[in-house]
Amino acid sequence: MSDNTFGHLFRVTTWGESHGRGLGCVVDGCPPGIQLDEAMIQQALDRRRPGQSRHTTQRREPDQVAIWSGVFEGVTTGTPISLIIENQDQRSKDYSDIKDKFRPGHADYAYIAKYGTRDYRGGGRQSARETAARVAAGGVAEAALKNILGENFAITGALVGIGDKRLADDIAFDSKIINDNPLFCPDAAVVPEWETYLDEVRKSGSSIGAVIEVRATGIPAGLGAPIYGKLDTELAAAMMSINAVKGVEIGNGMAAAALRGEQNADEMRLGDDGTPRFTSNKAGGVLGGISTGQDVVVRFAVKPTSSILTPRDTIDRQGNETEIITKGRHDPCVGIRAVPVGEAMMACTLLDQLLRHRGQTGRNGPADWHADG
Amino acid sequence: MSDNTFGHLFRVTTWGESHGRGLGCVVDGCPPGIQLDEAMIQQALDRRRPGQSRHTTQRREPDQVAIWSGVFEGVTTGTPISLIIENQDQRSKDYSDIKDKFRPGHADYAYIAKYGTRDYRGGGRQSARETAARVAAGGVAEAALKNILGENFAITGALVGIGDKRLADDIAFDSKIINDNPLFCPDAAVVPEWETYLDEVRKSGSSIGAVIEVRATGIPAGLGAPIYGKLDTELAAAMMSINAVKGVEIGNGMAAAALRGEQNADEMRLGDDGTPRFTSNKAGGVLGGISTGQDVVVRFAVKPTSSILTPRDTIDRQGNETEIITKGRHDPCVGIRAVPVGEAMMACTLLDQLLRHRGQTGRNGPADWHADG
Amino acid sequence: MSDNTFGHLFRVTTWGESHGRGLGCVVDGCPPGIQLDEAMIQQALDRRRPGQSRHTTQRREPDQVAIWSGVFEGVTTGTPISLIIENQDQRSKDYSDIKDKFRPGHADYAYIAKYGTRDYRGGGRQSARETAARVAAGGVAEAALKNILGENFAITGALVGIGDKRLADDIAFDSKIINDNPLFCPDAAVVPEWETYLDEVRKSGSSIGAVIEVRATGIPAGLGAPIYGKLDTELAAAMMSINAVKGVEIGNGMAAAALRGEQNADEMRLGDDGTPRFTSNKAGGVLGGISTGQDVVVRFAVKPTSSILTPRDTIDRQGNETEIITKGRHDPCVGIRAVPVGEAMMACTLLDQLLRHRGQTGRNGPADWHADG
Amino acid sequence: MSDNTFGHLFRVTTWGESHGRGLGCVVDGCPPGIQLDEAMIQQALDRRRPGQSRHTTQRREPDQVAIWSGVFEGVTTGTPISLIIENQDQRSKDYSDIKDKFRPGHADYAYIAKYGTRDYRGGGRQSARETAARVAAGGVAEAALKNILGENFAITGALVGIGDKRLADDIAFDSKIINDNPLFCPDAAVVPEWETYLDEVRKSGSSIGAVIEVRATGIPAGLGAPIYGKLDTELAAAMMSINAVKGVEIGNGMAAAALRGEQNADEMRLGDDGTPRFTSNKAGGVLGGISTGQDVVVRFAVKPTSSILTPRDTIDRQGNETEIITKGRHDPCVGIRAVPVGEAMMACTLLDQLLRHRGQTGRNGPADWHADG
Repeated sequence: MSDNTFGHLFRVTTWGESHGRGLGCVVDGCPPGIQLDEAMIQQALDRRRPGQSRHTTQRREPDQVAIWSGVFEGVTTGTPISLIIENQDQRSKDYSDIKDKFRPGHADYAYIAKYGTRDYRGGGRQSARETAARVAAGGVAEAALKNILGENFAITGALVGIGDKRLADDIAFDSKIINDNPLFCPDAAVVPEWETYLDEVRKSGSSIGAVIEVRATGIPAGLGAPIYGKLDTELAAAMMSINAVKGVEIGNGMAAAALRGEQNADEMRLGDDGTPRFTSNKAGGVLGGISTGQDVVVRFAVKPTSSILTPRDTIDRQGNETEIITKGRHDPCVGIRAVPVGEAMMACTLLDQLLRHRGQTGRNGPADWHADG
Repeated sequence: MSDNTFGHLFRVTTWGESHGRGLGCVVDGCPPGIQLDEAMIQQALDRRRPGQSRHTTQRREPDQVAIWSGVFEGVTTGTPISLIIENQDQRSKDYSDIKDKFRPGHADYAYIAKYGTRDYRGGGRQSARETAARVAAGGVAEAALKNILGENFAITGALVGIGDKRLADDIAFDSKIINDNPLFCPDAAVVPEWETYLDEVRKSGSSIGAVIEVRATGIPAGLGAPIYGKLDTELAAAMMSINAVKGVEIGNGMAAAALRGEQNADEMRLGDDGTPRFTSNKAGGVLGGISTGQDVVVRFAVKPTSSILTPRDTIDRQGNETEIITKGRHDPCVGIRAVPVGEAMMACTLLDQLLRHRGQTGRNGPADWHADG
Repeated sequence: MSDNTFGHLFRVTTWGESHGRGLGCVVDGCPPGIQLDEAMIQQALDRRRPGQSRHTTQRREPDQVAIWSGVFEGVTTGTPISLIIENQDQRSKDYSDIKDKFRPGHADYAYIAKYGTRDYRGGGRQSARETAARVAAGGVAEAALKNILGENFAITGALVGIGDKRLADDIAFDSKIINDNPLFCPDAAVVPEWETYLDEVRKSGSSIGAVIEVRATGIPAGLGAPIYGKLDTELAAAMMSINAVKGVEIGNGMAAAALRGEQNADEMRLGDDGTPRFTSNKAGGVLGGISTGQDVVVRFAVKPTSSILTPRDTIDRQGNETEIITKGRHDPCVGIRAVPVGEAMMACTLLDQLLRHRGQTGRNGPADWHADG
Repeated sequence: MSDNTFGHLFRVTTWGESHGRGLGCVVDGCPPGIQLDEAMIQQALDRRRPGQSRHTTQRREPDQVAIWSGVFEGVTTGTPISLIIENQDQRSKDYSDIKDKFRPGHADYAYIAKYGTRDYRGGGRQSARETAARVAAGGVAEAALKNILGENFAITGALVGIGDKRLADDIAFDSKIINDNPLFCPDAAVVPEWETYLDEVRKSGSSIGAVIEVRATGIPAGLGAPIYGKLDTELAAAMMSINAVKGVEIGNGMAAAALRGEQNADEMRLGDDGTPRFTSNKAGGVLGGISTGQDVVVRFAVKPTSSILTPRDTIDRQGNETEIITKGRHDPCVGIRAVPVGEAMMACTLLDQLLRHRGQTGRNGPADWHADG
């Protein structure tokens, strides 16, 4: 069963609400002997932290992570790693407005329909604040992947679209550029224009959607498995499980529908070292659900924040038609802070697949592809 | 663990290769007491069967399903239902051309990288023939859903795009129209043009991609659960696990990125009967991972068949650069036959979520949304 | 996957080491709307708490539980319940003696063989202290079971054997008697003798094993499922997963081997109300892996504490043969404190099975057993 | 979820009823490249086959297994292995006697209570015939274990008790002796006496219980994991899931309760080659849920066959009190044929644990136990 757990051999169970005592996750199945400390995880969390630019919510959440178990003398012990982030600001706010009104675009009504009750404070479990726990888990996964795969391994996410603006699919990802602007945008040239656009959106009390792309490099061929343990199946699930995500693409994605067979299939040649290489990467590094050794490329769309200042029609739990304005400090574009979340989900998915691959085959990497005789 | 199993309470495990002795699935966890016979499952399979029009492969696969267990005196017993389709045509063909060459766009190299060996006959386990087992399982799921949800429940899939042609998002789905043309197209008016286009593609020895949309109606609010058991997470996984799928969208999908908050969030009103209704369905019937009671809407893109008559560059297992033409009878647009597969995955996912929902909450439907006092 | 998680719809993931920052569990899948507060869970924990009589370790562990998530305004919300017990006493003791020596009967060597490293402080993850997290989870399960099954439902564990002393299988379980003596013994008459015996064991620096029996009453027929989801299969796993348990029995248990068919099978009659009843309960309330509506009866043997004052031969990590005495405050009979742990595992297993049963069948209880016509 | 599936990385899903069209299993997650053919699996099945001596049922079930998928050119491909045994004798017998009467000791009533319906022919899914599918899966697991662990690896089961007769715990297991008598008894000297005893039981129309012990040798230290993925936890579940099993013991088992600490803990010394060895094996090769490198020793009790010729009180589905005699050809001691079933469950459990161990740690065997410095 899944629900609040993801992964199989490397498993992450998250818990916590936006305005409860805290939130966190239990990371089970991590390989032992991996160097890990709170600073390494904090680094990932700090990229997701709100209030770092005018384009994200101005709330103050220090999101300080603590390791409560599973690490001893600086290395993982192979037992469950409990990561906890205490909520700083649990003061009782006035939630009377959202307590009984269903905010359009939010899961207020859906939660009531499912459970008959909900913690409405700041969205409770629905809040994107839950993703902090995933980012913390991703920090563990990334440390383990680096340990196993070495220095060629890297995961890089970026904002590649916002509103109707969109970068070319072949835009280069330079993590120095990406981390050097508040939008995680890989094209420094467009940043001023995009920032102006975001300012306009924010000042109008509105919000806007975004497209995020995450690339993993240094991934061995052979990860994934038919039919439901496919690498792309699990990446799609991982990304779609992030709050506000409405679409997921691998490689070419939805655009594959418009291609002819000759345009779509990546041809193969031999590299100078005699290893297989592909002349293109329309497949996004996955064929038949199994990695090919190329970059693994995933894209996902994040819908605009539903908390906006324009009044919206809704109903309340007393059975009245009414309207609602969601005041407060909200991200005009939640997609920006989804970049580190997407990276974390990529890291967790890849590590889990890698552990399962070596479980079944005994290898960290691909089999020899040469035929006998 | 997943791999060749999907679902949690309603679980489907598929097995079999394209040219082995047969293929099938074990359906575990089906509610007992559901009327079921081979004809009901065969009906679903017949929609997927090849050779029914000039737009699909002319291979003859009768795909006759047999129930080997789990059904007694016409009803499900609650024990595992084993469904088996014997392969008719296992004659030894000449596979020398694909035995050692990696077909671009196919998973030949990926399978070798993972396992070090593979059944290369007709694609073996990689073959889309595996989806016959899913369709059979979907027939069971649909029977159970109808039994539990009643006559308002229905799942309808359709081809909404092919190549660069695309129907409007709000196109009506009339199953009579959809099943009355060989393309499963909901717009009878475009069928002649699309057929001409497909003829051109087929005659040129090429192939083309497609977009499929699957809608479920009569789904109660409350199905799904945070954080990894979300309904949209599992639908995304279900669809992405289908052969050749490269993108999955819920509701607005990737287009959500281009919207503003006011455009995206579905407003709520009260129906004449005092029940909540939404004035639009941008969310595709899912908020916070939980169904809202609206139609559940999923879309996915199928890449063009990689088996084409144009020579393509590749390598072989002896370490030579070479090229390959994939002869034989292939679907010029595999997307067409993916329609019943998408419906089957929708049915299996919804039933599993429904069983889990009533497991946790004791209800088949939503809780009362009214507040006390 | 399991490892540090148990259960399927009602899932418990435990974490923490004996002398780390704390320990706890995440309880996922709990039905919503169940009244729950820290006091209810604390009550269960207090029964397990050390230092309550001279027969258990004199360590001071207040084991104060806090609910960090999943409960709002006094009821469960259906989202993950995070329960945390902070360790009070993390002061750096002198562990030089056990750091590198493998204590016979403990898992010191096994952990090193698995992970290559371990948190040796107080046994780390191997410590029976982990069971506090299970008892906390059991408190949640019991609250949910009472809510669903009503007042007839009860789980009662007791110490039925110690060393070579053993109560009769048909001894009555009166929770008033059981909770009124420090041994959780259902036979008040033998308590003085057993206490004297335990005093002798403790004073000699030795330890002794025990047999625990747990009975659940008010359990509906129909819980459990073939073949691996059997109720007795999961109870066996649940009990064997408790530290130091070496044997598990359902109903007659190992003694079933010595019986003839006529002695073993429980005959059936009709009760005055026309419902099925059994004239005996050799099966322990489970047939074919499914509950029969009788009391569910499980027994398990706990080995003697391996920490004793007699020097024992062992080796150290430097490759020397040596010997070891385990000083400190240890339970002379860990079996006593295993009583509430066994009850907790029974509660968690039954609730999980109940949720799965109603997921598949839509019923909390049995189907009508009458035939048509 | 489990139900009809067991295992995590090496997963077995069984299906089929006693008198349906056939039965079988799907083995998922098997390492690729393992030599496997039908004869290897048939060998295991033939040991379980009925009718081989006067002590087992005289029914004729050839139990011929066929591999339908997952094996190509004599080796496993890493994809699901579908094993099918067709039922030979599906002729419509007269089941009127057991159709509506609940046989005491059988799961007839329990199945009706759960599902509201059942396939009553020959016990349907309740029948011990299901274990044929497990034995077939065990044949696959054993082939994989031999491939990974080498020639030192072996699993040997034997009948060590019958009725009130019981062999000493330290009886030697010589597979030549065990396989040379129809009882799988490791002590050739007692066989004549036990056979006479069984003859008497059979002739009186009665039945008798048994104790089976299964030992695995050549198992590396390090398999298993806290808390719920313990090796002994999963072995207990595996054995308890076998039809008619009522008790499971690891090592000392229930007798551990009667021991003092000095008697119970296995002391350690260094072997001539500098590797750790234990001076006894009270633990049955498992400490803290993790293998120690010693023989893994499991014992289980099988209750007497409930199908006996003495009339027994029961009720029928029409609500009448009545009695029943179970005629037909039944095993007087089902425990005998449980020996190969226990071996199969041991093999499946060990392989699954081994794959998970190398998934998490990257090693097939133990870590180096030496401390640095």
